[in-house]
Amino acid sequence: MSWTLHAADLPDLARGATLLGTGGGGDPYIGRMLVEQVLGDAAITILDPDEIEDDLFVIPTAQMGAPTVMVEKLPAGTEPTLSLRILEDHLGRRADATMPIECGGINSMIPLIVAAETGLPVVDADGMGRAFPELSMETFAVYGTHGSPLALAGEGGERVIIDTGDDDHRMEWLARAVTIRLGGVGHIAEYAMTGAEVRRTAVPRTLSMALALGRAIREAREAKTDPFAAIEQTLATTLYSHVRVLHQGKVVDVERRTTEGFAKGVARIAPADGQGVPLEIRFQNENLLALRDGECLAIVPDLICVLEAETAEPITTEGLRYGQRVRVLGISTPEMMRTPEALAAFGPAGFGLDLPFRPVEACGVP
Amino acid sequence: MSWTLHAADLPDLARGATLLGTGGGGDPYIGRMLVEQVLGDAAITILDPDEIEDDLFVIPTAQMGAPTVMVEKLPAGTEPTLSLRILEDHLGRRADATMPIECGGINSMIPLIVAAETGLPVVDADGMGRAFPELSMETFAVYGTHGSPLALAGEGGERVIIDTGDDDHRMEWLARAVTIRLGGVGHIAEYAMTGAEVRRTAVPRTLSMALALGRAIREAREAKTDPFAAIEQTLATTLYSHVRVLHQGKVVDVERRTTEGFAKGVARIAPADGQGVPLEIRFQNENLLALRDGECLAIVPDLICVLEAETAEPITTEGLRYGQRVRVLGISTPEMMRTPEALAAFGPAGFGLDLPFRPVEACGVP
Repeated sequence: MSWTLHAADLPDLARGATLLGTGGGGDPYIGRMLVEQVLGDAAITILDPDEIEDDLFVIPTAQMGAPTVMVEKLPAGTEPTLSLRILEDHLGRRADATMPIECGGINSMIPLIVAAETGLPVVDADGMGRAFPELSMETFAVYGTHGSPLALAGEGGERVIIDTGDDDHRMEWLARAVTIRLGGVGHIAEYAMTGAEVRRTAVPRTLSMALALGRAIREAREAKTDPFAAIEQTLATTLYSHVRVLHQGKVVDVERRTTEGFAKGVARIAPADGQGVPLEIRFQNENLLALRDGECLAIVPDLICVLEAETAEPITTEGLRYGQRVRVLGISTPEMMRTPEALAAFGPAGFGLDLPFRPVEACGVP
Repeated sequence: MSWTLHAADLPDLARGATLLGTGGGGDPYIGRMLVEQVLGDAAITILDPDEIEDDLFVIPTAQMGAPTVMVEKLPAGTEPTLSLRILEDHLGRRADATMPIECGGINSMIPLIVAAETGLPVVDADGMGRAFPELSMETFAVYGTHGSPLALAGEGGERVIIDTGDDDHRMEWLARAVTIRLGGVGHIAEYAMTGAEVRRTAVPRTLSMALALGRAIREAREAKTDPFAAIEQTLATTLYSHVRVLHQGKVVDVERRTTEGFAKGVARIAPADGQGVPLEIRFQNENLLALRDGECLAIVPDLICVLEAETAEPITTEGLRYGQRVRVLGISTPEMMRTPEALAAFGPAGFGLDLPFRPVEACGVP
C-alpha cells in the first residue's frame, strides 16, 4: 500500500535504516537533517512497488563513499538532485519517481532529499535489502537491470557520467575512482528502470520495514518493554523473519582503516561474563562475518547487527568504541538475496571470503 | 595554407613530433602504425588555422596516460573515434574537424586516426606547442577556452563524460583517476571550440612544423649533411627560432618511476670528454629542467630535447639507456607560451619548481 512520510517519521526511519545498515551504509543522521531542512511541513509520497505502473520511469539516487568520510564531510546539499538531473539530461527523459539503491544507512535518506526537493514520489523498495559497499552488489543487477549509465555529482558542481554497458563491476571501479578524488564522497543516480523492472529486481517494502523497526524500538523503550523483542516481532511478518542473538558482551578492540575508498577492519567483542572466547566481526563498510572460536555464526548477505545492549540502538562500525556493552543479532535475508546468482554478487565469494554461505537460522548458535 | 597528408609523411611527422615531445608525449610509433592501418592510400586534409571559418566546430582528440604504459598497452583502435562520438552525442552536435591538444609525441597521431576513420579534416594547430603531462596545461585554457565537457573512452567500450565547468585542473584530476583505473591509458575528446577560438587560443601550424622537422632530419642524413644544422634551419623561420646546444655526452644514469599516472624521474648525462660536471634533466613525462652544476640551462615551457648524437634521432625519457651518446638541445617556445598567464599554467611554478622562468636564449650557456 502506498503511504505518506512526514518529517516526524524520520528519526524512526533513521534508526531502522541504521539497523539494516549492519554497521555500514553511513550514519543516516546527517541525511535526516538534510531531509528535514528541505521537507519542512510537507510530505513525501511512498509508492508500494506492487501498485506502480509497468512503465513508471524510476531513477534511484544515492551517496557513495567511505562511511568514515561521510560522517565528517557534509554534502553541500545540492548534489542529490543534481545527480538525478544529470542522468535525466543524459537520457533525455524525466523521472517519474526515485528509489533507494540500498535501504541501510544514509542511502535510505538520499532519495527523500531528492523527493522533498523535486516533489517526486519514492518507491518503497531497494536493490540491496540492507547496505553493501559496492555499486554492483544489487539485486537490480543480479536480476538483469544494470547500473549504467551512472551520473555522479560533486559538491563543487562536478558532473560525471559513466557508462560501462552491462558491466556493473567496471562501473563501480570507475565511479569509485572519481569518488575518491572528490574527497571520498559522491552523489549518484544509476540503475534507471521501469516499474516492471522494479517488481522483478528490487527487494520490496524495505523503507516501510526500516520505519517499522525504528518505531518498534522507540515504542518499546517508551513503554519500558524489551526493544529486542519488539525487533523480533516486527520482523516476524516480513521477508527477514529469523532473528538470532549471536553474542552479548563488551567491545574490546576495533581495528579500522579507510583504504581504497572503503572502511575495512575487525571488531572484537568479549563475552558479557568476561569468560570465554570473544566474537570477531569482520567488516568492509558493512559487517560481513561473525566468527567465534573459528566457527561462523553469520555471514553476508545475512545481517550482522551490533546494538546497544540496553536500548537496542544500532551502532555503526565507525561508532564502535572500547567498552560499549552490546548485543549482536543475526537476521535472515529474503530468498531473492540468497539464490546462487545473488550469492555470487554479494555472498561470501563476492567479498573474497573463503567460506560457504550458511543461512543464519542454520548456523550453530550456542 | 591547407595541405594534404599521406601515409608516406607519417615517419617524418612521427620523428618531428617525438622531438617536440621533449622526452614525453608517448612514442608516436604505435600511433603511426594505427594511422597507416586506417589510412591506406587515402589522404587527410590539414586545415590552416588562418583559413578556417569562424564557426567551424572543432573537437580535439587525444590519448592521456603515462608514456611508460602507452608503449606497452596497445589501444584496441576504436577508442579515439569513440571518444569523439561520445562528446558529439553529449553536445548534440557533430564535429566539422578534429585537432591535436598537443603536437608532441603520440598525440600528434591520435587526431589523424580519427580523421582517417571519419573523413574529418585536422586543424594544423595544438594547445601545448610541445607535450605537457596534464590536460589543464593548454594554451586553449590559458586564453579562455575550457576543456569541459571531456569525453573519455576505454578499450572495453567504457564511456565517461566529465564536466567541471571552467575548472580544468579539476577536470584533469578526475579524468586522471579514471585513466589510471582503465589501466593507465584513456582516449579523450575535450576542448570543443569554434574556428574563431582556435585562432585566439591555439599554437598555430605545429603539425606542419613537426613534419618539416622530421623531414629535415631525414633529408640531412640521406644527404650526409649535419642533421642538427637542418633542425636549426627549419626552426629559424618558425615561432621556435632559438636553438641552443646545452650539452653533449653520455647517459650515465636514469631514475624513472611510474606513479600517480605519470612517469617521473631524473636523467644524468656525463660530458663527452668524461671531464666536468654531468647535465641533470628532471622530467614528469616531459623534460622540465636542465641543470648543470646548479645552473639552469633551460626550463619549462622551453623545449629540452635529447637527441642521438650522430643521427639527431630524438629520444624519449622511456627510451633513455645507459651509455647512449646524446646531444641536448634547448629550443625557445612562442611568445604566447611565455606570457605570465601561460607560465602560471605550465611554467616552472605549474610543476612545483622553485625557479623563475628564463628564456633559453637568455640562459648562460658555455
